[in-house]
Amino acid sequence: MNKIKVGIVGYGNVGTGVAKAVDATTDMELTAIFTRRAPQSIKHYNPDTPIISIDDALSMTNCIDVMVLCSGSATDLPTHGPHFAKMFNIVDSYDTHAKIPDYLAKVNATATQTTAIISTGWDPGLFSIMRSLFESVLPSGAEYTFWGEGVSQGHSDAIRRVDGVKHAVQYTIPIDTAINAVRSGHQPKLETREKHKRECFVVAEPGADKDRIAATIKTMPNYFADYDTTVNFIDLDDFLSNHSGMPHGGMVMHSGNTGAGNQQHMEFSLKLDSNPEFTASVMVAYARAAYRLAQEGCFGAKTVFDVPLSYLSAKDRNTLIKELL
Amino acid sequence: MNKIKVGIVGYGNVGTGVAKAVDATTDMELTAIFTRRAPQSIKHYNPDTPIISIDDALSMTNCIDVMVLCSGSATDLPTHGPHFAKMFNIVDSYDTHAKIPDYLAKVNATATQTTAIISTGWDPGLFSIMRSLFESVLPSGAEYTFWGEGVSQGHSDAIRRVDGVKHAVQYTIPIDTAINAVRSGHQPKLETREKHKRECFVVAEPGADKDRIAATIKTMPNYFADYDTTVNFIDLDDFLSNHSGMPHGGMVMHSGNTGAGNQQHMEFSLKLDSNPEFTASVMVAYARAAYRLAQEGCFGAKTVFDVPLSYLSAKDRNTLIKELL
Repeated sequence: MNKIKVGIVGYGNVGTGVAKAVDATTDMELTAIFTRRAPQSIKHYNPDTPIISIDDALSMTNCIDVMVLCSGSATDLPTHGPHFAKMFNIVDSYDTHAKIPDYLAKVNATATQTTAIISTGWDPGLFSIMRSLFESVLPSGAEYTFWGEGVSQGHSDAIRRVDGVKHAVQYTIPIDTAINAVRSGHQPKLETREKHKRECFVVAEPGADKDRIAATIKTMPNYFADYDTTVNFIDLDDFLSNHSGMPHGGMVMHSGNTGAGNQQHMEFSLKLDSNPEFTASVMVAYARAAYRLAQEGCFGAKTVFDVPLSYLSAKDRNTLIKELL
Repeated sequence: MNKIKVGIVGYGNVGTGVAKAVDATTDMELTAIFTRRAPQSIKHYNPDTPIISIDDALSMTNCIDVMVLCSGSATDLPTHGPHFAKMFNIVDSYDTHAKIPDYLAKVNATATQTTAIISTGWDPGLFSIMRSLFESVLPSGAEYTFWGEGVSQGHSDAIRRVDGVKHAVQYTIPIDTAINAVRSGHQPKLETREKHKRECFVVAEPGADKDRIAATIKTMPNYFADYDTTVNFIDLDDFLSNHSGMPHGGMVMHSGNTGAGNQQHMEFSLKLDSNPEFTASVMVAYARAAYRLAQEGCFGAKTVFDVPLSYLSAKDRNTLIKELL
């Protein structure tokens, strides 16, 4: 069987994760990595993998079945998505929730002869699947999403911009009393502050005013002001030893009633040692789906709501039905 | 908007649940209930709903968009499925796992101008979705299914066949130490006895030998012999007050590693006050999907692996993307 040939655009944590996730499959192979940096500056763990300038990607349309876009949502994907979808089947993890409809339309406009599955990963992605599935089954219920315990890159970045902060990491932590209230089935109304708390670990510059740093963080609008936030100052060794991983996770829960008040509760949860590697694993499953949809001539921009689950599996439909139904 | 017209075949616990689940939607309506019993013997909570003999169903092909088959898997569905799929779009919850491929082929052979989604519900059904999704994302991992705490009809029936038993109910209970071992991410090997235990509540006939009943239950092959089983004798009042519900639930868990040994854990769980009403809710979501697939001319027998999730939702695709992605 010919393996599905995968290209990676962007060699950060997610891009590296995609390479490893492709290695874990039996039906896909990594053909090349594309980067904006000088290709010779990239050290990939497999020295046989070609590292190619992103500017030369369009010369590779015949060698790549699916391009997995691992560039950032904020500034890169809005141009990379429509650009690459002109010539390649693509998968991405575009995660600026509010702008997804606009992004989808732009990618769809260029994906006239290709298949583009956008906003995969776990939120958006698997969590979106669960929200939609749960609501379809129990339309009368209430849905809750909790994130964490895990590192929020956006919040960690926000702390690092505070004057006097050298290194920082922020953990988003769901609050047990809120989770238990949801699990009770009583569909509680929960304020932002009741659902999550935020815990920060900061390495300060020598001589910096820690009280000021802590106060600046805790009162930062949008990021921290609406939450109970703890700021811990630690030294560099502690930071490097205990806070350099990228764990994450979370849960989607849905409680509803059927009939004469029978409570029904559905719950999906993730506990991840490595957020980027897991995101990459989801993207690779959708890369398989993008390739298959394209083979059938099913072109255009798709989301996780549009793709039958059988397209994600390395198993054929009959095997899936026999083994997993 | 014209509502999707639903027919129900078989008016037991699941059939009643389907009627209530249709009532909970905004885009579907119950057109008729079909029964093998004398129609006038059926008391439905809505007196305006026609109750019709199953023999007259084929005269109703123009009035029903989807027929939800709520008859039993053991003896009814093997004939009802292929029979009704000739003339109606159908949904069922056929759950004899080992015979699903054969049943699928038989329904597919008659569903040449209709859409038939078989084996919906939660296992098979939602649990199958999770097994397939989890394995596609983390192909290297191990998957576990736990059932309960909940009533097993099959095991309760088996107890009721023991001489001297008047009433009985059996609860399947997942064992916490096994669940925690799986959640640890170490992918344990678990024996049947380590995963679930069985607890029975029995009302004995007056004068029956309780020791013999308990021993007969505990040593019953296939049903109880491979499990740690507890048998409690209770009186009729206790039985009727505390053991007449049909709660169930369970979980599908998948643990795998990515990269250099990062543990990743996915988990889906259900906690249900009413097993038949929840099964019915899933079937009604798939009834919507069957109708839509048929509108597009996508005929034949389908499974939960074949149906994009957007087809299950009462929301249109753009709303789903905007609100839930």
